[in-house]
Amino acid sequence: MTIYKKYKVAIIGASGYTGSELARILVHHPEVEIVAITSESHAGKKFSDLHPQFTEILDLPLTKAEEVGALEPVVIFLALPHGISMEFVKKWHQRNAKIIDLSGDFRLKNVDVYQEWYKKEHTFPQGFDTAVYGLPELRKEQISKARLVANPGCYPTASILSLAPLFADNLIMQKSVVIDAKSGTTGAGIKPGLTTHFSNVNDNFKAYGISIHRHTVEIEEQFEALNTENVQIQFTPHLLPVDRGILVTAYASLKDAGSMDQTKLSEMYEKFYRNAPFVRIRQHPPAIKDVRGSNFCDIYPFWDTRTQRCVVIAVIDNLVKGASGQAVQNMNLMLGLEQTIGLKQIPIQP
Amino acid sequence: MTIYKKYKVAIIGASGYTGSELARILVHHPEVEIVAITSESHAGKKFSDLHPQFTEILDLPLTKAEEVGALEPVVIFLALPHGISMEFVKKWHQRNAKIIDLSGDFRLKNVDVYQEWYKKEHTFPQGFDTAVYGLPELRKEQISKARLVANPGCYPTASILSLAPLFADNLIMQKSVVIDAKSGTTGAGIKPGLTTHFSNVNDNFKAYGISIHRHTVEIEEQFEALNTENVQIQFTPHLLPVDRGILVTAYASLKDAGSMDQTKLSEMYEKFYRNAPFVRIRQHPPAIKDVRGSNFCDIYPFWDTRTQRCVVIAVIDNLVKGASGQAVQNMNLMLGLEQTIGLKQIPIQP
Amino acid sequence: MTIYKKYKVAIIGASGYTGSELARILVHHPEVEIVAITSESHAGKKFSDLHPQFTEILDLPLTKAEEVGALEPVVIFLALPHGISMEFVKKWHQRNAKIIDLSGDFRLKNVDVYQEWYKKEHTFPQGFDTAVYGLPELRKEQISKARLVANPGCYPTASILSLAPLFADNLIMQKSVVIDAKSGTTGAGIKPGLTTHFSNVNDNFKAYGISIHRHTVEIEEQFEALNTENVQIQFTPHLLPVDRGILVTAYASLKDAGSMDQTKLSEMYEKFYRNAPFVRIRQHPPAIKDVRGSNFCDIYPFWDTRTQRCVVIAVIDNLVKGASGQAVQNMNLMLGLEQTIGLKQIPIQP
Amino acid sequence: MTIYKKYKVAIIGASGYTGSELARILVHHPEVEIVAITSESHAGKKFSDLHPQFTEILDLPLTKAEEVGALEPVVIFLALPHGISMEFVKKWHQRNAKIIDLSGDFRLKNVDVYQEWYKKEHTFPQGFDTAVYGLPELRKEQISKARLVANPGCYPTASILSLAPLFADNLIMQKSVVIDAKSGTTGAGIKPGLTTHFSNVNDNFKAYGISIHRHTVEIEEQFEALNTENVQIQFTPHLLPVDRGILVTAYASLKDAGSMDQTKLSEMYEKFYRNAPFVRIRQHPPAIKDVRGSNFCDIYPFWDTRTQRCVVIAVIDNLVKGASGQAVQNMNLMLGLEQTIGLKQIPIQP
Repeated sequence: MTIYKKYKVAIIGASGYTGSELARILVHHPEVEIVAITSESHAGKKFSDLHPQFTEILDLPLTKAEEVGALEPVVIFLALPHGISMEFVKKWHQRNAKIIDLSGDFRLKNVDVYQEWYKKEHTFPQGFDTAVYGLPELRKEQISKARLVANPGCYPTASILSLAPLFADNLIMQKSVVIDAKSGTTGAGIKPGLTTHFSNVNDNFKAYGISIHRHTVEIEEQFEALNTENVQIQFTPHLLPVDRGILVTAYASLKDAGSMDQTKLSEMYEKFYRNAPFVRIRQHPPAIKDVRGSNFCDIYPFWDTRTQRCVVIAVIDNLVKGASGQAVQNMNLMLGLEQTIGLKQIPIQP
Repeated sequence: MTIYKKYKVAIIGASGYTGSELARILVHHPEVEIVAITSESHAGKKFSDLHPQFTEILDLPLTKAEEVGALEPVVIFLALPHGISMEFVKKWHQRNAKIIDLSGDFRLKNVDVYQEWYKKEHTFPQGFDTAVYGLPELRKEQISKARLVANPGCYPTASILSLAPLFADNLIMQKSVVIDAKSGTTGAGIKPGLTTHFSNVNDNFKAYGISIHRHTVEIEEQFEALNTENVQIQFTPHLLPVDRGILVTAYASLKDAGSMDQTKLSEMYEKFYRNAPFVRIRQHPPAIKDVRGSNFCDIYPFWDTRTQRCVVIAVIDNLVKGASGQAVQNMNLMLGLEQTIGLKQIPIQP
Repeated sequence: MTIYKKYKVAIIGASGYTGSELARILVHHPEVEIVAITSESHAGKKFSDLHPQFTEILDLPLTKAEEVGALEPVVIFLALPHGISMEFVKKWHQRNAKIIDLSGDFRLKNVDVYQEWYKKEHTFPQGFDTAVYGLPELRKEQISKARLVANPGCYPTASILSLAPLFADNLIMQKSVVIDAKSGTTGAGIKPGLTTHFSNVNDNFKAYGISIHRHTVEIEEQFEALNTENVQIQFTPHLLPVDRGILVTAYASLKDAGSMDQTKLSEMYEKFYRNAPFVRIRQHPPAIKDVRGSNFCDIYPFWDTRTQRCVVIAVIDNLVKGASGQAVQNMNLMLGLEQTIGLKQIPIQP
Repeated sequence: MTIYKKYKVAIIGASGYTGSELARILVHHPEVEIVAITSESHAGKKFSDLHPQFTEILDLPLTKAEEVGALEPVVIFLALPHGISMEFVKKWHQRNAKIIDLSGDFRLKNVDVYQEWYKKEHTFPQGFDTAVYGLPELRKEQISKARLVANPGCYPTASILSLAPLFADNLIMQKSVVIDAKSGTTGAGIKPGLTTHFSNVNDNFKAYGISIHRHTVEIEEQFEALNTENVQIQFTPHLLPVDRGILVTAYASLKDAGSMDQTKLSEMYEKFYRNAPFVRIRQHPPAIKDVRGSNFCDIYPFWDTRTQRCVVIAVIDNLVKGASGQAVQNMNLMLGLEQTIGLKQIPIQP
């Protein structure tokens, strides 16, 4: 019987959905122990007071962030809004702890791009030098060695995975990519607002942030990192009347369409993701509930022979593969563990 | 006080959603009288037995279709599935009645295209010669004189209206059009099936019929009729967890992008639809509930200066502007009435 | 042809759901003209800026309440929160205008009961003397003569109508009544909050305000007004993941159960409501969509022979019969009009 | 390191929701191995063909029921409709396997009651003699020794647990109990029908089966088994527009109301369930998503001092604690395992 000491982890930011999803996953992760969950405004309350589904499961009292250091966590998850997250990275980057930042503060390639798209000053530009973009399907090695991981956005996770095999082989015709993305409301967070008011969402559907969504540039940068120059995509997010889930419908024309067919396309995707345990190449269009509550990304690549265009559907649970599950996957890699540990939740359907 | 005789109308097909929506609109239409609603399987029952919302409003007994002739309706609405509808047109086309067919049987340009996309033999090919495609925003004159109107499909109504101003001026670059369409479940009809089983739809979302949906060719033909040759579009329908509503996100590159800007684009749309009382050009992306229960089509044309591409959002209620409301709009034109009569329902929101 | 002058009406409070529903109904009401809609915080904007479904239908600029007097409205609707509404009644009760207050400020019998259940001081207790409780099915005559109508709450409307025929005949056993009520979220208003945050409501269900909901006493008082002393009910509201609609399941034991049967019960309800055009006695349990968007209250009275208890289901649209539709029905009576004028909207189903 | 042989289990009936939920739980149960999942109509297909969420997780080929015997399962789950289930019990009851029947075929006390409420002949009445009603919170000992367990219905699980502490102490006044129950649509199964057609459920709500639902007698029998004679309850089920979850609102008057208060009531519940790991006594009304995807039953007992009545809210996930989770809990007891093994799923919220 192996005796091992569990890794201590801390979750900074208890009140949001990414915080509660981290807890849902980490409570049963066999190799880690949650030593602290913080909340500046709710310190002293129990975690289950904020998220009653954890009653009798995780009644841990919430602490202030300043108390975390003394507990010497090995991994720190920042489940905070962008702008605030960077302050913690600035303060803690020299501690002996691996940091996984779930915000958008270190996802882009440099401070200039950040300030252009986030319309906000960045107070810790040095972070861009060390941060690794935490998409394990594309950067497993780098993540394993990283001390600061920028956990990808939810739309980028699904979008990048949907076309990565084609961009990696530099097959896509410039400026032909349209990504029409649809997300559940949890992507907008736990704070009530008009956007997520029930009557404004239920039985309803709309597009938003056309052409200006910050995830656009995040996706473009990652495609460029895959052997392709000057990527420009058309990205349109829409708000679905569902809690969880993102479905992207990605359209791309190919440089050499004549040599493509459905078999070849499917094989290309199968091969590209053969070592990716959370990507499932599907034979039929997947629905978002096929992955709900799990860390899977299901992808259906389709070759339209009539129009000579690729149409690729990808689905994820935005709170799991699009946030907290992916963060744990990154943690596993950073700790030298098998990446699937603690992440075998089966999708909840129906 | 004007004394006038109301126009007698008959609805063939009581059991579906288009039948009940026709009734909802026509009951309060000041110029018509419903003389018959038919159902072969439910004849003898009251209309409100099938649709209890009509209790004490429309308790009319259902009749068999064969009894309709004696009542001498001036307008006959065929609210039937395709394949069955053509039989009634065949049988009744020489009667002294205007026929509005809500099925897909006469929407395409000829029998060959029909048989290719509908995978079905057509038993009344002559109908294609006289049928007028009933999209009043584009064919008001022809509809006014028609004896047989093929009422457009729901996806085509929103899709065609979304890009018609650009196609009419022949501005769109060939093969650049992607129409990513999302529909509520009533588009799939009133008959239960796996597709519309609550647990398969609720909190869920998926694409279907990628590249093979029959509405693709209907849309292409109508764009071709607008001064443009060889139109080929990429059309992807998706199923929303909502009852009613279609939102299309249409993408198009322009032949001469350099001269386009947001102001010009908006003005072009305003001008094109200046005489179309049911098209509202919006300044912000519309939501489907903005038109629910009404005959409006709300359109938001957007010029993306970064990508030099048009992104156009259009929303309709698939049962009203996408079916029964449009049918009544066509009827108004065929009877020489103001096209808005009986169609001033205000959208139900929330 | 009759020439008549339309009645001028004003809506005080543009931003909420009751305001927009009043507009939806009054725009097409043949006997009235909306002369003003007010909003202190949005004055100057168009009504359709707040409620985009009214684009090109009602683009009337919003005014401040103080400007309303000069327009000399015949009827003033107060679509305001309780506490604020009383101030306007205080200020305007001597004007030559009929006031219909949609808030809870004048629904109870006196200021003491109000202050006990609303936990709030009342600044215009005199209003209780003149206010008539505006449930037309029970108080048609009084409403016709009223100058101040307290429009009933949504839960009370459905609850009172569900058992009124039994209370009116004093048949109900004391303390036996349980009213288990379920409401859509629009009952909680247009302001975002945790209660109506999409992810907290969607695919969810819960009880709230058990035993302390203010509508409890409103229901009890109205039952007492119906020939029965000392009514005490058990009232439990629940929040449904739907936009509109209230369904109440009312349970009552009878003083003389032995003589009751299903036929007798149905006939008693039919007779009691024979002159109530908006109450439909149903033969099967109604669903809330059977009345959505309409002013109907559908009631299914059931006699359970096994348990010797009445189980009555009643459904309304909380924004129409539970608020704005009922307000217009009251207005019709106050103006001496037929009570159904402008209120013939057919339920939207699906 | 302990070497142990996993227990072999078989699931009879692959196609329904209880079958897929059993698989979701058992795949990760550390002490069991699924040796067969059967489907007469889909034999040969993979389990994941029917339930695509299991792609790459459980691609086990489906077998016919007749092949199960040779695999010598230790536990057999019957995830079949009532009427069919009894045939398998009849055929297999002498095999050396423990049987857990998720249907209603052996839940009632005898064949006469069964035939009265199920309107169906029972072909294996002997089963009633050996079947143990599998509600572990009330019958842990009996279940541990049982060879045939009748897994409780979903409504009865929530309903019985909501009032069991009061019935066990014989505190409830005769005929005072009203159970107003609300269920998600998965309770109606995976087969499409009008009841579960999306447009009939979405944004809708209704009661059904008033006074005649089979679960009524099941609840009454179990209350009678708890030290109380001649129990008669009023039970009304309603259909919620949600996938999963049951909420019951239970009302009861007490024989000696004068001595009851909130503290006493809460303590009584805490004490009664102190050894029940899946019952959580809550301080606020729980929502159904507080337990979604988990085996918990959350209960909020409330004493209404004004009306002197108990109002108890209980919530479960109908597919887990109301079906497959409870079946696994029973299996654990029958195998002498800790009852929580494999059942620690944390509720999915949102």
